[in-house]
Amino acid sequence: MTYCVGLLLEPGLVMLADTRTNAGMDNISTFAKLHVFHKPGDRLISVMTSGNLAVSQSVVNLIQEGLPESDAGQKDTVYTVPTMFRAAELVGEAVRHVHKIHGEAMRKQDVRFDVSVLVGGQIAGRTLRLFQIYAAGNFIEATRDTPFLQIGEHKYGKPILDRAVRPDMPLADGVKLALISMDSTLRSNLSVGLPLDLLVHRRDDMSHACVRRIGEHDPYFQMIRERWSTALRDAHRAMPAPEWGF
Amino acid sequence: MTYCVGLLLEPGLVMLADTRTNAGMDNISTFAKLHVFHKPGDRLISVMTSGNLAVSQSVVNLIQEGLPESDAGQKDTVYTVPTMFRAAELVGEAVRHVHKIHGEAMRKQDVRFDVSVLVGGQIAGRTLRLFQIYAAGNFIEATRDTPFLQIGEHKYGKPILDRAVRPDMPLADGVKLALISMDSTLRSNLSVGLPLDLLVHRRDDMSHACVRRIGEHDPYFQMIRERWSTALRDAHRAMPAPEWGF
Repeated sequence: MTYCVGLLLEPGLVMLADTRTNAGMDNISTFAKLHVFHKPGDRLISVMTSGNLAVSQSVVNLIQEGLPESDAGQKDTVYTVPTMFRAAELVGEAVRHVHKIHGEAMRKQDVRFDVSVLVGGQIAGRTLRLFQIYAAGNFIEATRDTPFLQIGEHKYGKPILDRAVRPDMPLADGVKLALISMDSTLRSNLSVGLPLDLLVHRRDDMSHACVRRIGEHDPYFQMIRERWSTALRDAHRAMPAPEWGF
Repeated sequence: MTYCVGLLLEPGLVMLADTRTNAGMDNISTFAKLHVFHKPGDRLISVMTSGNLAVSQSVVNLIQEGLPESDAGQKDTVYTVPTMFRAAELVGEAVRHVHKIHGEAMRKQDVRFDVSVLVGGQIAGRTLRLFQIYAAGNFIEATRDTPFLQIGEHKYGKPILDRAVRPDMPLADGVKLALISMDSTLRSNLSVGLPLDLLVHRRDDMSHACVRRIGEHDPYFQMIRERWSTALRDAHRAMPAPEWGF
């Protein structure tokens, strides 16, 4: 399984992914699910994937190399697309291409063609955007009303995001909430696992890609986990008991 | 959808269910999913159901009336079974009976045979127990290591239970945690809805069944929801920001 969450905030974009993959319960590995495509000054685009690893790795390769069936002219790649909307389209086309090549054979082996992708970023002179691409290659976009998108095991970590994420919050708050949301998921689903990959993308800054790998012993993440547990425990203990006479 | 949670604590049992059913997104109704079978002084058994309503209503009827294929002698019902283990078996047998009658026709209509049942309670002179029965009629039991069981839309409300439920906590704390868990589920899944049905069963007390319907305007539940939201917001705001230089 996988858990990835992207937050599109006024000051920028927060992307957080776990790294665990499993082919059955007894075959667990670590693979990066956060991929960063950076042409300093021109574009900073990040992609997170969930679902079948063979499919998602193919998609990530195709958007870098361009799709074979493109027109004879210049092939679009994630480094050349003129807009983020076109980047989302390119990912969708890559998903459909992989389905065309492998979908039928996977179906015959009873393997689900299962992939979801978050694509976020900004191209110089244009807007910071965040998209979620489905297995059919179609996609949706994060908005001010719903400024976060999740793929993979999204339910355990959703309640805190539903309650707390606001589009005008500072990036540091977005990072905290993404880590809290991830912590809830890590605790409840063993197939989501450390280390984590975090990207923080400040709006209109295509020069710096702040990427960080967060392991088990990361002092900040440890602190977040402990303080969050304590805060929850204190919060429910502090609530008055019902006076319902049982 | 449905969310039901049962907590087996040292001082007793807490059972909480929502009441929303839906046949598609555009056909929503209210049906009780908590059923109480009480012979004062002798037994207090409660049953909560999720899944296909036609199946679960049949199961609830069968355990009251006894299964048709029982031996010629006295039919077991939820009012006559000698042990809670036998009550769980009876529910499993009822599930299998409904599957035998309706399973094939449902399959032909592409309707999933989907049912899960929580059965908790105590019979005089015996132990308070809590079981979860699957659609195959087999079942598991709550233990001190995992003192809560959930059916239906369980993921949104699980993180707080994973962190906070302890078998030796007072019943009032169990009620609070069940309501907080339900609140997270109500906020994230529209197909889980108010009012709620709550049963509190004090261990070794087969005289009183404390059952309460909790609606939208219940002042205690309103207070829990508001204070919990505030506590979560305060908790994440109070955490230091990461010093990662983004």
